[in-house]
Amino acid sequence: MDESNGQLVRVDRDRLWGTLMRLARIGSYHDAATGLEGVRRLALTDEDAQARRQVIAWMREAGLVVRIDRIGNVYGRRAGTDDDLPCVLMGSHIDTVASGGAFDGTLGVLGGIEVVRTLNDHGVTTLRPVEVGFFTEEEGVRFGTDMLGSAVTAGRLTLDYAHKLTDDHGASVAGELARTGFDGAEPERRPIPFAYIECHIEQGPILAAAGVDVGIVTGVQSISWQRLELRGAAGHAGTTPIEHRQDAGLAAAAVIVEIRRMCESGQFGALRGTVGKLAFEPGQTNVIPAAATMTIDLRVPDDDAMTAAEAHLAAFVAELPDRYGVTGSLERMAKTSVVRFHADVQALLAATAGDLGLPFVKAMSGAGHDAQEIAAICPAAMVFVAGEHGGISHTPREYSNPAACGNGVDLLANAVLRLANNPDAQLAPTS
Amino acid sequence: MDESNGQLVRVDRDRLWGTLMRLARIGSYHDAATGLEGVRRLALTDEDAQARRQVIAWMREAGLVVRIDRIGNVYGRRAGTDDDLPCVLMGSHIDTVASGGAFDGTLGVLGGIEVVRTLNDHGVTTLRPVEVGFFTEEEGVRFGTDMLGSAVTAGRLTLDYAHKLTDDHGASVAGELARTGFDGAEPERRPIPFAYIECHIEQGPILAAAGVDVGIVTGVQSISWQRLELRGAAGHAGTTPIEHRQDAGLAAAAVIVEIRRMCESGQFGALRGTVGKLAFEPGQTNVIPAAATMTIDLRVPDDDAMTAAEAHLAAFVAELPDRYGVTGSLERMAKTSVVRFHADVQALLAATAGDLGLPFVKAMSGAGHDAQEIAAICPAAMVFVAGEHGGISHTPREYSNPAACGNGVDLLANAVLRLANNPDAQLAPTS
Repeated sequence: MDESNGQLVRVDRDRLWGTLMRLARIGSYHDAATGLEGVRRLALTDEDAQARRQVIAWMREAGLVVRIDRIGNVYGRRAGTDDDLPCVLMGSHIDTVASGGAFDGTLGVLGGIEVVRTLNDHGVTTLRPVEVGFFTEEEGVRFGTDMLGSAVTAGRLTLDYAHKLTDDHGASVAGELARTGFDGAEPERRPIPFAYIECHIEQGPILAAAGVDVGIVTGVQSISWQRLELRGAAGHAGTTPIEHRQDAGLAAAAVIVEIRRMCESGQFGALRGTVGKLAFEPGQTNVIPAAATMTIDLRVPDDDAMTAAEAHLAAFVAELPDRYGVTGSLERMAKTSVVRFHADVQALLAATAGDLGLPFVKAMSGAGHDAQEIAAICPAAMVFVAGEHGGISHTPREYSNPAACGNGVDLLANAVLRLANNPDAQLAPTS
Repeated sequence: MDESNGQLVRVDRDRLWGTLMRLARIGSYHDAATGLEGVRRLALTDEDAQARRQVIAWMREAGLVVRIDRIGNVYGRRAGTDDDLPCVLMGSHIDTVASGGAFDGTLGVLGGIEVVRTLNDHGVTTLRPVEVGFFTEEEGVRFGTDMLGSAVTAGRLTLDYAHKLTDDHGASVAGELARTGFDGAEPERRPIPFAYIECHIEQGPILAAAGVDVGIVTGVQSISWQRLELRGAAGHAGTTPIEHRQDAGLAAAAVIVEIRRMCESGQFGALRGTVGKLAFEPGQTNVIPAAATMTIDLRVPDDDAMTAAEAHLAAFVAELPDRYGVTGSLERMAKTSVVRFHADVQALLAATAGDLGLPFVKAMSGAGHDAQEIAAICPAAMVFVAGEHGGISHTPREYSNPAACGNGVDLLANAVLRLANNPDAQLAPTS
């Protein structure tokens, strides 16, 4: 196949933008911290279910045949002229964090639908079927494990494990799938695609700094999520001498300060560490915290650096009894090694961007994405779209302008079109 | 009056203990952290209301005439032979923290009832009326202001201010008083007592270390409660470079570590600082905290040291924008200066302890008590009772043995009896 000979298509930017803005109204809330309208659609809540129904309606309007699997992943399929060939899959997620924006995840899903609409508009058929999918609980903020739906599809997590996860109120994934009507019957280990491309906002400053709208993602850094439980002893704030205290809150603070020191030390490469969630027990003004529970998110684009960072943190926690009279126990929530995307799909994206006249940079992803899971079962890669305000994300300030979104989905459309007309049995194995 | 000539009474220790244990069953819960049964009776909850009704029933059984004031303080009165004279008041509180024990507050209230029962048993009449009271929301953990009922009675806070305070769910003091039926009609600025004595567990290690069951409290250290709100910026944990972060959680951790450093420095006398309550927003594993809110409890037995400590803390908070890109705003929740109890009442307690053959020590209180408020309107003092496990309190491990409780209430009984037979117009002004 000579990809450069294929005709280039251009998506309808206004239609894409309108669809993005329309979906952002589902789960919209007024964010007091920023004064902006944000989006809150935690996985398998009523808001997420409403958004799912809307996206499925758009899929069907675009002629896609929709199926839902047992972990609630949704796929819409456009037949190929040889419909028995493995499909080309586009996708991402539509769940958000509690204080999310309009672009994270949705760009890849609604962008995929826009690609199909554009193919329809131009009467373009493809050799292979083309699918658009969205995966359940990518964010992991409700049930504690991110990339949940794609990890089950890739076989890294079992369906049973995923179904039994619960949220802070004890509601299970299985229960919430059933409650919202997204407990599909299709097998979660779906037919292997020919290739997967995910278009996603960058959520970082690299593209904007380079003055480009699009990026080609080389891979995803290693990500470690752990839960740290600290146990000290409660006591009266007024009467307990400082030297007798076993203050779990103080130990938690020391861990947070140490994580920042680790990041700034350079000792662990470009380590990023975040404590986003922390709770004290019993949580009263005049009671020394008996217990503190926190999440620890570590990321670094090097597996050895991650190993060293985790070991350092574990050693620091092991010193807490001596330092503060507080015991700590670390529990693994999730961990992924560095993922490198398929070289041929990256090369195809670069060639296509060139044909479209789109300047781009190559960048590793700081965030985790469904593509890192799907990369385990088929050739996969990602297109990044630049964001404003330094690429800030997971806040209502998240914003990618219509031109950047349009350019990213143009690149997605043409790369998918070329892959969907590729008659090869398979792409080259990843080098 | 020659106090040493009066007859000594002894309370019924088994009856006192049985009453304490009976009340502890109201609001009882299994505490996972300690494996013990704790007590949870936050002010004006259903549990507190049930306990109030039980205590009122015991008051009435002891012949006391009960009245309830407009802030929900409850008083039971035993007439004197000259019932127009100002009364001698005993009291404390029956609300608890969320993880409380059986003794904090209740000893002074149920001890007061036991004193009345003992006077009844022996047919003892007194010149002055004797009252037993309990004050609303002493702990301050539900509505954010401790010593609430006694502070309103003493005139430090207005009834209107107190009524409008709300809990974390928006329920107001006035609403909860009405809901529980404790919105009494009596004036909150009650008739001035001749004297007030509060018997309370020490909640600290001093008495046990001295090997005595009882202490005479010289005063209460200065207590400052502040709320600190920190505002940074949310951001994605994976993509936001460390040097661009405005992590409100990190700033919170730095404040906690600094407060401990202040306490250990010796620069602020015997300062005790506690951060018991801390919340992150939005509170998600993969989102840098945009905001953090904490309570700060500072205590020191010296007003100048408190002034210096608060100033140092404010200066530290003022540096947070430069250090972390996070702004902080401190809000006053409560503050009390050092209170020194009435010298004559302390002397009477010392003499009475001597007559009872009870060894004692004098100690300043590390905890706040209703007595520090009532001291503003009449001569007041306190009896401390030793606790086991280093006097640990605000936990189900809180424990004072029956002998220590009995000795403390014996001291209360005989001091009250002497004050109630004192015909003087008033005690000497505090030196």
